Amino acid sequence: MFARALAETIGTFFLLVAVIGSGIMAESLTNDTALALLANAIATGAALVVLITTLGPVSGAHFNPAVSIVMFLRGALKPAELVLFIACQVLAGLVAVMATHFMFEQSLIQISTTSRTGLAQYGSEFLATFGLVFFILLGIRHNAGAVPWIVGLYITGAYWFTSSTSFANPAVTIARSFTDTFSGINPSHMPMFIITQLLGAVVAWLIAKPLTR
Amino acid sequence: MFARALAETIGTFFLLVAVIGSGIMAESLTNDTALALLANAIATGAALVVLITTLGPVSGAHFNPAVSIVMFLRGALKPAELVLFIACQVLAGLVAVMATHFMFEQSLIQISTTSRTGLAQYGSEFLATFGLVFFILLGIRHNAGAVPWIVGLYITGAYWFTSSTSFANPAVTIARSFTDTFSGINPSHMPMFIITQLLGAVVAWLIAKPLTR
Amino acid sequence: MFARALAETIGTFFLLVAVIGSGIMAESLTNDTALALLANAIATGAALVVLITTLGPVSGAHFNPAVSIVMFLRGALKPAELVLFIACQVLAGLVAVMATHFMFEQSLIQISTTSRTGLAQYGSEFLATFGLVFFILLGIRHNAGAVPWIVGLYITGAYWFTSSTSFANPAVTIARSFTDTFSGINPSHMPMFIITQLLGAVVAWLIAKPLTR
Amino acid sequence: MFARALAETIGTFFLLVAVIGSGIMAESLTNDTALALLANAIATGAALVVLITTLGPVSGAHFNPAVSIVMFLRGALKPAELVLFIACQVLAGLVAVMATHFMFEQSLIQISTTSRTGLAQYGSEFLATFGLVFFILLGIRHNAGAVPWIVGLYITGAYWFTSSTSFANPAVTIARSFTDTFSGINPSHMPMFIITQLLGAVVAWLIAKPLTR
Repeated sequence: MFARALAETIGTFFLLVAVIGSGIMAESLTNDTALALLANAIATGAALVVLITTLGPVSGAHFNPAVSIVMFLRGALKPAELVLFIACQVLAGLVAVMATHFMFEQSLIQISTTSRTGLAQYGSEFLATFGLVFFILLGIRHNAGAVPWIVGLYITGAYWFTSSTSFANPAVTIARSFTDTFSGINPSHMPMFIITQLLGAVVAWLIAKPLTR
Repeated sequence: MFARALAETIGTFFLLVAVIGSGIMAESLTNDTALALLANAIATGAALVVLITTLGPVSGAHFNPAVSIVMFLRGALKPAELVLFIACQVLAGLVAVMATHFMFEQSLIQISTTSRTGLAQYGSEFLATFGLVFFILLGIRHNAGAVPWIVGLYITGAYWFTSSTSFANPAVTIARSFTDTFSGINPSHMPMFIITQLLGAVVAWLIAKPLTR
Repeated sequence: MFARALAETIGTFFLLVAVIGSGIMAESLTNDTALALLANAIATGAALVVLITTLGPVSGAHFNPAVSIVMFLRGALKPAELVLFIACQVLAGLVAVMATHFMFEQSLIQISTTSRTGLAQYGSEFLATFGLVFFILLGIRHNAGAVPWIVGLYITGAYWFTSSTSFANPAVTIARSFTDTFSGINPSHMPMFIITQLLGAVVAWLIAKPLTR
Repeated sequence: MFARALAETIGTFFLLVAVIGSGIMAESLTNDTALALLANAIATGAALVVLITTLGPVSGAHFNPAVSIVMFLRGALKPAELVLFIACQVLAGLVAVMATHFMFEQSLIQISTTSRTGLAQYGSEFLATFGLVFFILLGIRHNAGAVPWIVGLYITGAYWFTSSTSFANPAVTIARSFTDTFSGINPSHMPMFIITQLLGAVVAWLIAKPLTR
């Protein structure tokens, strides 16, 4: 159990370092926002493949409360494990924000002022998380060894094909509200992101059922 | 049968969201068209690998009437299945256009004004679809597990090495005529695209025969 | 034997379409040469993975006289096969140049005026071809299924880490002398490219021997 | 033993050619530093996948004294082998710098003037090397065939998510102090980089223990 919690902690930590760090680096090097988003998307996708390949055999490599909740609904996680996983994910995200800010000589704790709200954004987060969970569930069923690539490539693409850049992860959303850099989100817009993410995850679980029997 | 139709629908839906959404996102972030096309190509290729890896075991993951017709010619699809698959693909494409426009706060239905016509464009679509079907058929014969990567990488490359950016898919072509954004095509130029795509697919099937026995 | 010659022809054809077409497309869309080279490198690498995965089981997927010569030296190709392979590769390259020019509405036959000469360029081509052949030979010995990725990723990288952008292929070099676009080479500079490429290939074969026993 | 030393030498040579060469090429083609870093990151990552896939079965494909030291601590390398490996890595790095400078018509030996110092940089190198060694150790334990991709993708991402661009390798650090181009490091800042890298490697080894039993 300690090993699994450690895996979720280290994995979510590196996921957030990748998301936030690559955003800060890109923003500092170019004025072209598309180029910054491309670097952000490639760095995050690459990190996800690495993290899920190496930590998947230990904890399942969720790094995402929405994924852990669906695993709980499927009976693959006990209630106590669910609570522990989510705690580790949220905590690791917060520590990652501070570590990344340290590496880039920024104030350790910040409050994001980036506005991400409105129906279009909610629809994006719903679709982004729906797709993430749906393709993970089908991947587990048909080709479990491919799940690291499924997640890494899905997120790399979804940075571009949703207007919200696909947070698709409540722990990531919470952490990103504490950085006022490229990847931040205003904390007051956080709750609706998390609600639409959880909704997308549960709908994906329901629709995936006839395809994963 | 329901599962297969559902897989074709969800897969084609996400394919079109990836193509059109990443085009809108890229166009809104940069003035450099090459950078926009690079984001478009990477997002589409990444999505294709995910979609074919996860939905291939369910329906074969065609998402493309040209591919479904060749599978019918090879005897791998019955007439009723062919009709159902094509209906799902075309319908899913249209719904995807509207969903993507919703996410990016655009009018839900648009008519493209992007001109894509002339012999050079027809030649591009013929070659693009020829290659797509040819390499799928050889992949199925020699290395079926690699087909998701074959298709994803082929399309990522073909965005760049054909002057039409490789639609190579009648359902995609129809859907893209309803968006007046980066990836659109004037509806009056659609029929010749579809004709040359189908021609390329059938020629690929004929030439692949001696290599796939 | 017909199937193998057909595979070398179609494969080299698409390789050259990828190299030259993506160069023309990129050059027409951006003024940033690094961005054009990035598109060129990604499109070529992606195409190589597809071509070698699908055609490797048929012909070995050389698409390159330098590789065919080394396979001949290793006893894996008979003299008549070597001649046939090289003829197909060179011919396919020339047809590809014309097909690509047709797709991009350019004069079908052109003579490149791009200067690529001097000791630094020769050293680049020697090293580029040395590495290509060396890593192919080690890949065949230790992990044959990975050869498509070895070649695709090697070339994607080598576009950037050699000053010549790594032609590393006599058939490609000949074909590229007939396009006066992004990827061209002045025909008078072609012979030294081919000589240094063949030299690099043979040295790679010799040095790989103790590691591939 | 000769084969293993040769593999470490050729692998580290090509790694440094990829890092330094792609940096010089990118810097010469664009004024956008983010684009240069993207080319640098993609070329290095692509090269690493190739090098580790092909040379891993021969020597383990360390190309990095920090990795070799951890392998020694794990009992997978004898003292004499450790010394030989490190000597080959450092020497190959230096030869690679000169070969790359030759290809790009630069003075063969240079002294870098690029400042890379301060606590944020040290923290970056500690974290970069910690992650590299940690994910290699977990990869070896759970999915040895994936190690080439783990390392290649980790480094591609880490170029972006650490402020130091992740040298994470003492032999690479030494070599890069001899080039006054994009990827250089002032020699006086080299010792602290190496110390923090070794510290990160050893801490990774300790923390990975409960997860790799």
